[in-house]
Amino acid sequence: MQLRYSIFGESHGPGIGVVLEGLPSGLVVDMDFIESEMNRRRAKKGGLSTPRLEEDRPEIISGVFEGRTTGTPLCAMIRNGNTISSDYTRTMNLARPSHADYTGRVRYGGYNDYRGGGHFSGRLTAPLVFAGALAKLWLAEQGVRVGGHILRLGPVEDIPFDLVHVSPDQFGEIAARTLPTISEEACEQMQQVIQQARTSLTSVGGIIQIAVTGMPVGIGSPDDSLEGIISRNMFAVPAVKGIEFGLGFGFGSAYGHEVNDPMRMDGDRVIFLTNNNGGILGGISSGMPVIFQVVIKPTASISREQQTIDMVNHTNAQLQIKGRHDPCILSRATVVVEAATALSIMQALRDQ
Amino acid sequence: MQLRYSIFGESHGPGIGVVLEGLPSGLVVDMDFIESEMNRRRAKKGGLSTPRLEEDRPEIISGVFEGRTTGTPLCAMIRNGNTISSDYTRTMNLARPSHADYTGRVRYGGYNDYRGGGHFSGRLTAPLVFAGALAKLWLAEQGVRVGGHILRLGPVEDIPFDLVHVSPDQFGEIAARTLPTISEEACEQMQQVIQQARTSLTSVGGIIQIAVTGMPVGIGSPDDSLEGIISRNMFAVPAVKGIEFGLGFGFGSAYGHEVNDPMRMDGDRVIFLTNNNGGILGGISSGMPVIFQVVIKPTASISREQQTIDMVNHTNAQLQIKGRHDPCILSRATVVVEAATALSIMQALRDQ
Amino acid sequence: MQLRYSIFGESHGPGIGVVLEGLPSGLVVDMDFIESEMNRRRAKKGGLSTPRLEEDRPEIISGVFEGRTTGTPLCAMIRNGNTISSDYTRTMNLARPSHADYTGRVRYGGYNDYRGGGHFSGRLTAPLVFAGALAKLWLAEQGVRVGGHILRLGPVEDIPFDLVHVSPDQFGEIAARTLPTISEEACEQMQQVIQQARTSLTSVGGIIQIAVTGMPVGIGSPDDSLEGIISRNMFAVPAVKGIEFGLGFGFGSAYGHEVNDPMRMDGDRVIFLTNNNGGILGGISSGMPVIFQVVIKPTASISREQQTIDMVNHTNAQLQIKGRHDPCILSRATVVVEAATALSIMQALRDQ
Amino acid sequence: MQLRYSIFGESHGPGIGVVLEGLPSGLVVDMDFIESEMNRRRAKKGGLSTPRLEEDRPEIISGVFEGRTTGTPLCAMIRNGNTISSDYTRTMNLARPSHADYTGRVRYGGYNDYRGGGHFSGRLTAPLVFAGALAKLWLAEQGVRVGGHILRLGPVEDIPFDLVHVSPDQFGEIAARTLPTISEEACEQMQQVIQQARTSLTSVGGIIQIAVTGMPVGIGSPDDSLEGIISRNMFAVPAVKGIEFGLGFGFGSAYGHEVNDPMRMDGDRVIFLTNNNGGILGGISSGMPVIFQVVIKPTASISREQQTIDMVNHTNAQLQIKGRHDPCILSRATVVVEAATALSIMQALRDQ
Repeated sequence: MQLRYSIFGESHGPGIGVVLEGLPSGLVVDMDFIESEMNRRRAKKGGLSTPRLEEDRPEIISGVFEGRTTGTPLCAMIRNGNTISSDYTRTMNLARPSHADYTGRVRYGGYNDYRGGGHFSGRLTAPLVFAGALAKLWLAEQGVRVGGHILRLGPVEDIPFDLVHVSPDQFGEIAARTLPTISEEACEQMQQVIQQARTSLTSVGGIIQIAVTGMPVGIGSPDDSLEGIISRNMFAVPAVKGIEFGLGFGFGSAYGHEVNDPMRMDGDRVIFLTNNNGGILGGISSGMPVIFQVVIKPTASISREQQTIDMVNHTNAQLQIKGRHDPCILSRATVVVEAATALSIMQALRDQ
Repeated sequence: MQLRYSIFGESHGPGIGVVLEGLPSGLVVDMDFIESEMNRRRAKKGGLSTPRLEEDRPEIISGVFEGRTTGTPLCAMIRNGNTISSDYTRTMNLARPSHADYTGRVRYGGYNDYRGGGHFSGRLTAPLVFAGALAKLWLAEQGVRVGGHILRLGPVEDIPFDLVHVSPDQFGEIAARTLPTISEEACEQMQQVIQQARTSLTSVGGIIQIAVTGMPVGIGSPDDSLEGIISRNMFAVPAVKGIEFGLGFGFGSAYGHEVNDPMRMDGDRVIFLTNNNGGILGGISSGMPVIFQVVIKPTASISREQQTIDMVNHTNAQLQIKGRHDPCILSRATVVVEAATALSIMQALRDQ
Repeated sequence: MQLRYSIFGESHGPGIGVVLEGLPSGLVVDMDFIESEMNRRRAKKGGLSTPRLEEDRPEIISGVFEGRTTGTPLCAMIRNGNTISSDYTRTMNLARPSHADYTGRVRYGGYNDYRGGGHFSGRLTAPLVFAGALAKLWLAEQGVRVGGHILRLGPVEDIPFDLVHVSPDQFGEIAARTLPTISEEACEQMQQVIQQARTSLTSVGGIIQIAVTGMPVGIGSPDDSLEGIISRNMFAVPAVKGIEFGLGFGFGSAYGHEVNDPMRMDGDRVIFLTNNNGGILGGISSGMPVIFQVVIKPTASISREQQTIDMVNHTNAQLQIKGRHDPCILSRATVVVEAATALSIMQALRDQ
Repeated sequence: MQLRYSIFGESHGPGIGVVLEGLPSGLVVDMDFIESEMNRRRAKKGGLSTPRLEEDRPEIISGVFEGRTTGTPLCAMIRNGNTISSDYTRTMNLARPSHADYTGRVRYGGYNDYRGGGHFSGRLTAPLVFAGALAKLWLAEQGVRVGGHILRLGPVEDIPFDLVHVSPDQFGEIAARTLPTISEEACEQMQQVIQQARTSLTSVGGIIQIAVTGMPVGIGSPDDSLEGIISRNMFAVPAVKGIEFGLGFGFGSAYGHEVNDPMRMDGDRVIFLTNNNGGILGGISSGMPVIFQVVIKPTASISREQQTIDMVNHTNAQLQIKGRHDPCILSRATVVVEAATALSIMQALRDQ
């Protein structure tokens, strides 16, 4: 049965959550692990992220019995706390640049919940992380692991994953840092860039790199490619504006003899000496690590004055967004992108 | 009814084709336009592409009556000519690096048709172009146009589309060149790069940029984003390894105040002064041109000797691919990527 | 966007509910109407149904803002009350005949929640009625109405709907009776049959007839027929074992000249003089009322001793189900079947 | 990967066919068996069916290599012969009662191919039988068999399948008769009824009963029931107007203690002493034979004069259909209904 997930909720409505259909039965729902993943998404202290407190304890409503999945639809819900919606009335007619305020309004005929971004809010990534944590638990049983790090943040670059030799042992180390990076130095420089962005009343974008290890050969199809499955889920994550596999856009200035991945027998095993294709050939996994990068645009909400429009009165307006906002979501986005990856890989594996 | 298309066929089987379901009825099937699109995909003379002759005349089997779509499933088929399959027996066990030979073999348990790449062959893009041409005809009725050019080919860059002011008037001019570029100079330099690649027995990759003009506001959803619909179809096109919208990976080193697109009223119309988001916000079209780039890896088949394996005997092997192969598919791929775009946009529009 | 609904929950878990995706935005969510529909599903007093009290107040978690649908996923949830699960431990290993205990156990590897039927419980029809009520509100705006009655209950037959002249005016009258019937006499006789079944420690089945009025012509497709859409949703309703449209199984002993529906012009309108086809021809609505019958098997839970097996010890066993159970669910099932119908018709209409 | 099939074509267009996606690879495509199934659908001699000759040799275009499925999309096509379309011009504006002429015209805005019923033609069941034959070949490898017979034809009833003990050994015997029946006497009486219908210039309906043997336990889901999967495919078969499982509509006048299926251990195996539920409980297979009945309405085309309308001039009209038409399609429909069954069961099995 195909794995399917539906995320529901609005930032300032009664709650947010997710329904998963097509889960296997008998999966142990390790709430400690799930909680640790939810924690990775939470705002960090020390000015590296938004100081707004979020509890985000998911309650499992259905689909789990005596600590294991039943196989029937699993619903988990997070109640929204006492949000002060009156904050929003003053600026509710003003479209925030680079946000979905205007497109959402047109799409839903003006009936969408505008408070805090409504269904477009980054808060909706909390149930996605919950669902992704479940997927990771199942994948771990198959020997498949998903990890990510911030490859770039503004001008700072981290050391990339080794496309051939990336190991899940690195993932825990990365997640333990203040920001998820491979290099300690990059971690510190990125923190400085974030602080500078904050003091400059702006925000900063970056690139997340993901690795999936332990991937079996032969998953995906030419007509329903593994890249396509991943990318469709990825573009439902707010702020994602691009995805590339392996060498990605680097292929655009490359020559075939430089980037074709040579193959060899390693005893009984087929290996590739390089992995420029990011573990996928013809839409199908090659057995090498699946590696890809997604770009996250700078947080749209910045405190500088911006040119915009009043959507109700159809006039030009100037907007200065109040309140504290994340100058950079790359750290929190890493676990979100991992979650969307884990769900995609599980969908592809369960479909075969 | 949702638009759906299924591409079938193998390179050296009886034929290839496509079935489209969910087409509107009454659409005039302009065979001249379809033929002109099919021609853009055909191999060019003058050494810029593979000299193998292909006729690729699609026969419409169903779904068209008296020159218009009936609304019931449309099947179009292209017979394969007298292909010499014996060419393949000598190397059939050797996996061509960067091809799907190995992953396809594992995926299909060794039962897939290996001749000429089988279902993975670039030939399968011919029915895709046919289907895309139909989609373009329907989109034109809605005032929506799709065009593309080679933004990069190896070391050569073309002038990018103006993200705000791109016009469909450019599309014809681009398509008329030897290679689809905006700049005449880039066109000539790219030809040289291709010739050098050929003489160096290698191949070269590139980037295609696509623009969709006349796009209405409000198409797509946060949970089923326009970017996601496009990307899923795009990664079913052979050799595509990445996609980015608007500024794309450029967002990764950008600051919010530089890249947030300011909004203004232009009379009654809402406009964006810049279009770094590539015409999509929150997964929904903004009314600005939808602009994105896809990267095409260098043609996998090159004549240099490569390290590979014998998939049957499980031994290391050296492979030297015989025959003439395209050193660069960017030119032919442009109309293919346009076709996948047109189908995606039509799917999104028909779904709302 | 396609309308989709997912029902989640287990009878004795934390709660049950539904997520609807693809709803239109701006629909007024008339909670009084929804509550009245939910009431129709509730157990009746006077021994005609199970005396167990159920509150079943749905809480809307998402997708509604200021009394209207937002167009984003709508989740509604019903908390389960203080259910006494210890009731079930004594018989949890015994498969109740005609229930899904055994098939569910095999399907879900023994991990499904067995208490009170778990996800198979009739309680899960409460969120279905909620969703159906929403669909009815939308259909009413299009002039489409859905109504049903008990056509047969054990040996008692009600007057059938007039296939040509059925009017929505009848629906309120039917719903106002103790049991939903057209004939007052049938209503009384059916009550007696139910009481006899109760005192005989058995249960009784029946047939529900549904009429959809105001249906536009041209909805459905030969390949995705309106009958097929309705039937797929209908067989997800517990206890449904058959569906027939119009004359239905009566066609099996009929001759063409007797049952072909003659057509006439009625001014500018096309009418059918008879409606043996139940308002659907070639899978497409004809503009006549859509009429069909579904059969509901007798409640599986009866108090007589029954032969069964112990699923854990793999031994034969005798089962005597304790507690009060509905001897007949036809009355409550009528609004459930109406709900599944309303959702099906809305799916078909929204898809075109 | 989910099994999906799309049937395309029009009765008087260039051809008809089917594309199957999600087939397993390596299945031996036994063309003799496929041909024998196609033969069962062909018109019979001796006046029992339409004398129009049809060749209907399917050509496999893709998805088969060296006699086995490749696992990539399989397209099979049947060319339409030299059909004389001019026959239709005289009556093309007249809607044939009980046909889809009128609903199809409205659905497709008048652009559908009206000749010979176009996409609604019974001819489209030929590719369905082809696809069903493939499904039967795969099912046979799993030990699953599908067979059917005419349970009723007008006033004549055949002996029903034994719900518990039906055996695939019967299927060949049934298929070998002039009409597919269990009882020789019923076969003869049915032939007489058909001849009488012919001489009376009318047609006659009937009921087909299907049995699936060797079905494993646990296939299907409560939310996506096995009955629902079968019924959705079944209502895409022309002339099907109802479906019931096991006792079906008989449940409507039954009492629980009479029809609940008692369970016993038979050594290690779980068995049901009766099979009123037709092998499905809670939407999930029980391991007993899956048994159901579908009703086929009398052939719509009869030679008697009928009241209808002129769809172009919007006037009343009388229609007398010329040409020889099947007075009864039950015999040919049996293999068609078997095919839709086999595809449904394969879909359900492949999905788990």
